[in-house]
Amino acid sequence: MSDANSGALLDRRRLLGAGGLTLVGLAAGGARAQSAPDPLITNIQPWQSTEGEGVDARPYGAPSAFEKDVVRRNVPWLTASPISSVNFTPLHKLDGIITPSGLCFERHHGGRAEIDPAKHRLMIDGLVDRPLVFTMDDLKRMPRVNRIHFLECAANSGMEWRGAQLNGCQFTHGMIHNVMYTGVPLKLLLDEAGLKPNAKWLMLEGADAAGLNRSLPLQKALDDVIIAFGMNGEALRPEQGYPLRAVVPGWQGNIWVKWLRHVQVGDQPWETREETSKYTDLLADGLARRHTFVMDAKSVITNPSPQAPLKYKGRNVLSGFAWSGRGSVPRVDVTLDGGRNWREARIDGPVLDKSLVRFFVDFDWNGDELLIQSRAIDSTGYVQPTKDALRKIRGVNSIYHNNGIQTWLVRASGEAENVEIS
Amino acid sequence: MSDANSGALLDRRRLLGAGGLTLVGLAAGGARAQSAPDPLITNIQPWQSTEGEGVDARPYGAPSAFEKDVVRRNVPWLTASPISSVNFTPLHKLDGIITPSGLCFERHHGGRAEIDPAKHRLMIDGLVDRPLVFTMDDLKRMPRVNRIHFLECAANSGMEWRGAQLNGCQFTHGMIHNVMYTGVPLKLLLDEAGLKPNAKWLMLEGADAAGLNRSLPLQKALDDVIIAFGMNGEALRPEQGYPLRAVVPGWQGNIWVKWLRHVQVGDQPWETREETSKYTDLLADGLARRHTFVMDAKSVITNPSPQAPLKYKGRNVLSGFAWSGRGSVPRVDVTLDGGRNWREARIDGPVLDKSLVRFFVDFDWNGDELLIQSRAIDSTGYVQPTKDALRKIRGVNSIYHNNGIQTWLVRASGEAENVEIS
Repeated sequence: MSDANSGALLDRRRLLGAGGLTLVGLAAGGARAQSAPDPLITNIQPWQSTEGEGVDARPYGAPSAFEKDVVRRNVPWLTASPISSVNFTPLHKLDGIITPSGLCFERHHGGRAEIDPAKHRLMIDGLVDRPLVFTMDDLKRMPRVNRIHFLECAANSGMEWRGAQLNGCQFTHGMIHNVMYTGVPLKLLLDEAGLKPNAKWLMLEGADAAGLNRSLPLQKALDDVIIAFGMNGEALRPEQGYPLRAVVPGWQGNIWVKWLRHVQVGDQPWETREETSKYTDLLADGLARRHTFVMDAKSVITNPSPQAPLKYKGRNVLSGFAWSGRGSVPRVDVTLDGGRNWREARIDGPVLDKSLVRFFVDFDWNGDELLIQSRAIDSTGYVQPTKDALRKIRGVNSIYHNNGIQTWLVRASGEAENVEIS
Repeated sequence: MSDANSGALLDRRRLLGAGGLTLVGLAAGGARAQSAPDPLITNIQPWQSTEGEGVDARPYGAPSAFEKDVVRRNVPWLTASPISSVNFTPLHKLDGIITPSGLCFERHHGGRAEIDPAKHRLMIDGLVDRPLVFTMDDLKRMPRVNRIHFLECAANSGMEWRGAQLNGCQFTHGMIHNVMYTGVPLKLLLDEAGLKPNAKWLMLEGADAAGLNRSLPLQKALDDVIIAFGMNGEALRPEQGYPLRAVVPGWQGNIWVKWLRHVQVGDQPWETREETSKYTDLLADGLARRHTFVMDAKSVITNPSPQAPLKYKGRNVLSGFAWSGRGSVPRVDVTLDGGRNWREARIDGPVLDKSLVRFFVDFDWNGDELLIQSRAIDSTGYVQPTKDALRKIRGVNSIYHNNGIQTWLVRASGEAENVEIS
């Protein structure tokens, strides 16, 4: 580790002695430094002198033991039972735009179903010409697509409506993941069943103990919904709906029904618990918005953040990601001084529709306090609002759809905390 | 499972009784079919009536127990010891373009090193102005990029030079994976060290027990080589070089040095074991090609294939992937009749530079024998050659760089096998 109180990184970087190195065996290959001040490079380390495990040891791999803290975490006081609860993706430990399947946050209403795919069926019925039941094999014989999309829980950042609550982006923003899905367009299945002229809504129902169900407008189903059996190259993980889930690009996670067993076609919404008692937005006047499906543009700085303080002065990397349920995010702005000055962040990696994009600001830190924020501007021109602007319209009763700008205060010590500024 | 001898899928799909369904509780939500011939949809299944695990059960997730056969596999007779050996990615079980990190094939020369990242260092020395040693923290403070690239072992398909040998694309083509990497462009590190005017080659050396080292032309390093610490969103996996590896887009896997500890700058190649005794291509006349870094355009049909037979007549999905070390692959052709007729496959998912692309052919199978092949055409116009065309130029002494067209024979039973046709 470098000295946390040092000046610019490069001025103090460990040089290998004033006169450079004495090298041996240059032409023979495998040259090593003979005189250098860093014993970690000049001394042979254990992993250089001891054979490791062979290729038969781990048919399915796992992270290094040194990464044991990079895990999903739940908050026990948040729910009455872990069976109907949530855990959170460790966003501050991730990079790029793909969320590893083992770290995708979980939200169950009846626990994680463990389904035998040979015994799983998908039924399509209701206002159709031909009610149908599909096996997994049937679905895998139909034309399929691969799409990278984010899934965000409507309640992501929901604890923050009344002020800064949770100290870490894992908890304030960790109900999101971004995955490459493989599956069959729902439109193809509906075409096979044949829609009656009065078909307008679908009901999607899961095969878990909660039997979670949601109403989906037919038009969205015909537009881009995927009945997915694959994620990130392999089969869905059990906690993400194995063997089958709905992928509803840009819309709130609750409607991406997992363990999908039933698509019923009707002419009006079903008004299920999950779209009446829950997943509606109570406004200040006591009325509630409902069917608020789309996740508006949002972003968060993951590094630095309360779980990822600055450790060094001088050169640093600020990183985060942005997303929009209405399109792509071609631009993200970042401020280090609470909004007085904004700069356009460097977006790196693919910019895809309804997918996370990764942004960076490479900056030098002189040790002063920072108030850091990011704001997403999506392909429709929508600009991520402040939390205050949202509260003026929506009040503070809501749990859902908080896409306000997040502020982290970075102290002179490098520690960061969740704050609000107005 | 449907009847494997049935006609077209849709003619025989299980209909829910001739008169459709009797439904109850339509307006109340959660409607279930009351009379239908499929007990798996009409009877409550165990996972619908029993709560599953809570969100505190699995901080880091794993695949379903029903996917236990989707694993890397090694071939014990191939090498003297599993410590210096290879295992293979189960390509026939994957989809999309991202290889799950747990399934990325392994190739070690001294076993899987387990490195403490706090004790890992990267040294840059040789023909530089300022020899430097970087900690992992140092590297994570430098500007970073995210790129999706394939890594193919030069020996992939190497057993096939003298004829069809291995029965399964996992073994004929499974020394490849495709990952989103996160890391620092090597050019930035070299800029910091300052290159001497006569700098022309680099030597990359690993910190594993094999101390594997390779010579890399400086121009490639300045072009697009990444010193990566992340893969698929999280830290590198140990078997892929944790905490640090070289990413050398489009070039053979052996030069993507894992557990990277040392970059030495020189004016000529080091002629290490891995570029003289190994990773050279012995031609028919006894001379050998060397420094054959680039992986030429190639493709393989993963489904159907010997490990993934056709199970049904009628509608089917043929799938596979293609790649090129010289650019992207905008087009893949497929034949079902041994080359008499070719059709352009449907490419689905991102088409990126030096990355796998996924292709599909949706077709109806009447039960006749098929001779199936795919050929990649890359963005330079290069067309993947037949194995015979390759042998005419390269002979059959080689192990490396076999990018010839693969043929699978699909028998009337649906079983597939590895064959050659001329």
